[in-house]
Amino acid sequence: MSDPDQRVTELGLVVPDYSDPPYGRRYGVMKAYHRSGRLLMLSGITPEDRAGVKVFPGIVGAGVTVEQGYAAARAAAVNVLGLIRYAVGSLQEVTAIVNTQCYVAVGGGFTDVNLVSNGAADLFMEVFGDPVGRSTSIGLGISALSGNNCFEMIATVETRSAA
Amino acid sequence: MSDPDQRVTELGLVVPDYSDPPYGRRYGVMKAYHRSGRLLMLSGITPEDRAGVKVFPGIVGAGVTVEQGYAAARAAAVNVLGLIRYAVGSLQEVTAIVNTQCYVAVGGGFTDVNLVSNGAADLFMEVFGDPVGRSTSIGLGISALSGNNCFEMIATVETRSAA
Amino acid sequence: MSDPDQRVTELGLVVPDYSDPPYGRRYGVMKAYHRSGRLLMLSGITPEDRAGVKVFPGIVGAGVTVEQGYAAARAAAVNVLGLIRYAVGSLQEVTAIVNTQCYVAVGGGFTDVNLVSNGAADLFMEVFGDPVGRSTSIGLGISALSGNNCFEMIATVETRSAA
Repeated sequence: MSDPDQRVTELGLVVPDYSDPPYGRRYGVMKAYHRSGRLLMLSGITPEDRAGVKVFPGIVGAGVTVEQGYAAARAAAVNVLGLIRYAVGSLQEVTAIVNTQCYVAVGGGFTDVNLVSNGAADLFMEVFGDPVGRSTSIGLGISALSGNNCFEMIATVETRSAA
Repeated sequence: MSDPDQRVTELGLVVPDYSDPPYGRRYGVMKAYHRSGRLLMLSGITPEDRAGVKVFPGIVGAGVTVEQGYAAARAAAVNVLGLIRYAVGSLQEVTAIVNTQCYVAVGGGFTDVNLVSNGAADLFMEVFGDPVGRSTSIGLGISALSGNNCFEMIATVETRSAA
Repeated sequence: MSDPDQRVTELGLVVPDYSDPPYGRRYGVMKAYHRSGRLLMLSGITPEDRAGVKVFPGIVGAGVTVEQGYAAARAAAVNVLGLIRYAVGSLQEVTAIVNTQCYVAVGGGFTDVNLVSNGAADLFMEVFGDPVGRSTSIGLGISALSGNNCFEMIATVETRSAA
């Protein structure tokens, strides 16, 4: 597998700079990450860019399509890359995407939650390859996410060195 | 407390063999488990057997009864036993069920989420006894789970030896 | 920052005594906490007092207001303080609120989940100050919580000494 930072460039991904993370300003007092040994735990991250523009906000199954939800999940996963860089400097520090919890705002009887959360899972595989990018995971269809986002995720990452 | 593997036999439980886990095939790219020190983290697991047959799919409070939801939760917990064996070989490796997050697909104003998730909690107590089988836990009533399952759970387990 | 136990007194908070935790009695078999190294993991906790009286039960956006939800989240966070004392004796043992997952029962199209979960985040900042009280976090709007509570949270805490 090639270097994940190089893969980001090859894939043409625009990874946000989180040196000024959005949490305090927009979504209440929290911190972007916590390190405990080799585990890096991230706060919930949505598919919003640094200007607060959201990728397909709303409800999957009631206005937002599966394809749009997948795109939103992919965008949130790209934001996770930004949080990882903010926390540990480089994607090369990642030895495993340990766990992802993927939340999809759903309605209208929509149950194919996994078809949306795959947008995040596939992005991590493209960037980190197998097995580093293959996480334990759960996808959950819920009522509402802050700011009317259609997708939000948390990730736990294993890093090469301990904090 | 007797040996948990022996308890499984005494209880007549059919624990699935996950040497070929269902995740990639059916629910997107993910891995079944991650080990970090003595912690074993599992992916979300539903009450589906190896053929994909679901235990009481649908919505608790809107078609699925509390008793059926309890049975689904118990079935998912039996599947957790299969994941533990797949990851570490034997249930005797378990020193604690650290945490369970239990998700119940609910509707119709149903709020007794705990009466459903008890199906998983009770199973772990029957197999591992107290205190090994007694976990920290939360039960959550949500809109939808992948594949229209009425229950899904994640579990974190402490093992005798470190990875 | 002053001593967090002293801050609790200054703030006039009534922190419940959990030497007899509510879980087994009311919400099924579980334990209040698990310690793994320096991490303390807590079970889901609602804004209920020791007599089972709930702070603004129901659905935020459909009967319960944002302000009431905020008050419920603050009450649940006060209960977390009680669980921490039960587990490790004193709030002075806390070196970081590592993570909080905040669940809000929502309806009627309500999406400002963060305005509710801020009730917990703000309380931790008042008691522990920055950065100890600033956690990684996610807020989620879901269908139902056990006992018709409008809020429930889980917290992971880092302690001074290892278990």
